[in-house]
Amino acid sequence: MKNLSIVGSTGSVGTQALSVIRDFPESLRVIGLAAGNNTELLSSQAHQFLPKLVSANSAREINVPSGTRIVDVDRIVTDSQVELVIMASTASAGRAATLKALQAGKEIALASKEVLVTAGHLVSQCAVDAGVAIRPVDSEHSAIWQCLAGEDKGSVDQLMITASGGAFRDHTLEELATVTPEQALAHPTWSMGKKITVDSATLVNKAFEVIEARWLFDVPFDSIQVILHRQSIVHSMVQFTDGSVKAQMGKPDMRIPIQHAIFGGERRFFEEDARYNPTDFSPLTFEELDLDRYPCYTLVLEAGKKQGTFPAVAAAVDEIAVELFLSGVIPFQGIGQLLSEVLGRHSGRSNPSLEEIIEAERWAKEVALECSKLVSQ
Amino acid sequence: MKNLSIVGSTGSVGTQALSVIRDFPESLRVIGLAAGNNTELLSSQAHQFLPKLVSANSAREINVPSGTRIVDVDRIVTDSQVELVIMASTASAGRAATLKALQAGKEIALASKEVLVTAGHLVSQCAVDAGVAIRPVDSEHSAIWQCLAGEDKGSVDQLMITASGGAFRDHTLEELATVTPEQALAHPTWSMGKKITVDSATLVNKAFEVIEARWLFDVPFDSIQVILHRQSIVHSMVQFTDGSVKAQMGKPDMRIPIQHAIFGGERRFFEEDARYNPTDFSPLTFEELDLDRYPCYTLVLEAGKKQGTFPAVAAAVDEIAVELFLSGVIPFQGIGQLLSEVLGRHSGRSNPSLEEIIEAERWAKEVALECSKLVSQ
Repeated sequence: MKNLSIVGSTGSVGTQALSVIRDFPESLRVIGLAAGNNTELLSSQAHQFLPKLVSANSAREINVPSGTRIVDVDRIVTDSQVELVIMASTASAGRAATLKALQAGKEIALASKEVLVTAGHLVSQCAVDAGVAIRPVDSEHSAIWQCLAGEDKGSVDQLMITASGGAFRDHTLEELATVTPEQALAHPTWSMGKKITVDSATLVNKAFEVIEARWLFDVPFDSIQVILHRQSIVHSMVQFTDGSVKAQMGKPDMRIPIQHAIFGGERRFFEEDARYNPTDFSPLTFEELDLDRYPCYTLVLEAGKKQGTFPAVAAAVDEIAVELFLSGVIPFQGIGQLLSEVLGRHSGRSNPSLEEIIEAERWAKEVALECSKLVSQ
Repeated sequence: MKNLSIVGSTGSVGTQALSVIRDFPESLRVIGLAAGNNTELLSSQAHQFLPKLVSANSAREINVPSGTRIVDVDRIVTDSQVELVIMASTASAGRAATLKALQAGKEIALASKEVLVTAGHLVSQCAVDAGVAIRPVDSEHSAIWQCLAGEDKGSVDQLMITASGGAFRDHTLEELATVTPEQALAHPTWSMGKKITVDSATLVNKAFEVIEARWLFDVPFDSIQVILHRQSIVHSMVQFTDGSVKAQMGKPDMRIPIQHAIFGGERRFFEEDARYNPTDFSPLTFEELDLDRYPCYTLVLEAGKKQGTFPAVAAAVDEIAVELFLSGVIPFQGIGQLLSEVLGRHSGRSNPSLEEIIEAERWAKEVALECSKLVSQ
């Protein structure tokens, strides 16, 4: 029996994680559930899974069964019974909770991109100090993790992260100038939240994934490449020093990497209709990325390479920029213009503390809002 | 320093193995080289690699440097200095030599399909008794081996062997009736010997590979499937119980799996132009096999499932049938007719000894020659 907490239980990954847990009642038990504002769904989850602990932004609105206590998120991730924390919150609370969980020696199944993107150096050091593994939940990083199983670290030459290319992969640069939020939210293969779907269209999510991969697998940036793969079947690949490549493939179903992370790389039986049959998904294509089409990708990746507060600033600006795009304040290409403008003004600080990262993010969001007037339609 | 012998050093795999050994002079040393009739090439190899021992059918025709002794093949594979034997002979001598090598506790890098196809139960038992590994050299089995690295045996659901489909994959059944040996020898992706190229066109080689996989990886026949993959880039795949698949991909270059087998799964650096770049080989296709097109495949696979002397009889008939086809005595479809005829007449013997296998093969070849009149053009 493995005891779990989920931070972000009402989001897309959180609800799918609970669906995996439901499939293995004899192996997995929910100790704590933390959510943000969706207290209605959290209450319903609490009645179904009977956790010991729940947490939400508005504690008063949670309706819990007897035997369940309402606590703060730190307690959810540090409770002595908890062995593994599924970190699926997109809020900045997820980052602090990840550090707390690691300090308490808990294993992490990490779905929140922002955690490693903005504070990779702190989180990685914390995991090393605690001797605890961070297991990826993202399908791309899970694929790389699976391809690395049984392989010597020294034999890795390149991590090859696949990208669907997002909603606008075939738009001309002229067409990109006038795309609407509705068009951006129509992702070709995965069904996801709004923010990440726009990040797929700008390819900011891939820049984040490259930065995450750098920390998760401890490889230099120039050993990570991104390949356009429209079908989202090859979830990612690893090239080895002998020139050959291993790929992990499957249907776009997040429950498979979630299950893999929860069970620490152990595979379990999964329902028949989740099985990938290669002949049902043919052909598979691989293309070079056209970087002219994805200026945001280049900007965020460069910020990642500069390290320090730069990637946190990039993520903060992106958050504001996507909101402004979705609410119709700036055009699609304004996202890249805001990133460029604010990153250009940022002087950066190397090896920042969590407080310094938070301060840089606050600064970045403020400047992004100021600059938004420059790029509004 | 690893000490090796090669049985079949003048064939396609043997010469490529020597090219790999040449790349690692500080790690690999040739102790013995055994060939059949190509004593000219063997002599030249002996002068280049200065082995301690050489062997050929006509010992008198070998010209060796001083310090090299001419011996029989048993000595080549059992010499006390030898640690690993690369078994690349297609002759039946390879099978006896494999058993001898295993009994002497030598690791085997196995390229000769016939060894496990005809005597899988004897060879596997011998390897278990000696506590010695048999490592696959074939690109398909090497791919499966690589995909299984770091995975629990219990999590394997299906081995997926890829097949190019051979020279006639797009011929109609009518066109197959009149194909010539020259057409059969034009393999779409790999450059190989004549026998194996015809076996690719009939898909007999895939039936052999399924039988080999059954022994190499100890899985039941119904957990092995063959998928038509025209590009020969995905060398094979493994599906796991969670429904996801791992694939090993690379350029069609035998030196990579040979190197992998020699180094026991350890990866080494390989020359730059052997690197596989996914965007250079796109798209990749996967199709169901059209079994109507490949009656030989079904016949040989059924023989494999029956076990006992059946697979040896199938391999012996195929050997004769391919010879008769290449020399213009029987048409292409006569290969399947001969297999069907002789296998139908075979009563079979379960768990046969090596002598009983040899006797069944002798019988099969005799009957195949007799029956060839029935199917000649």
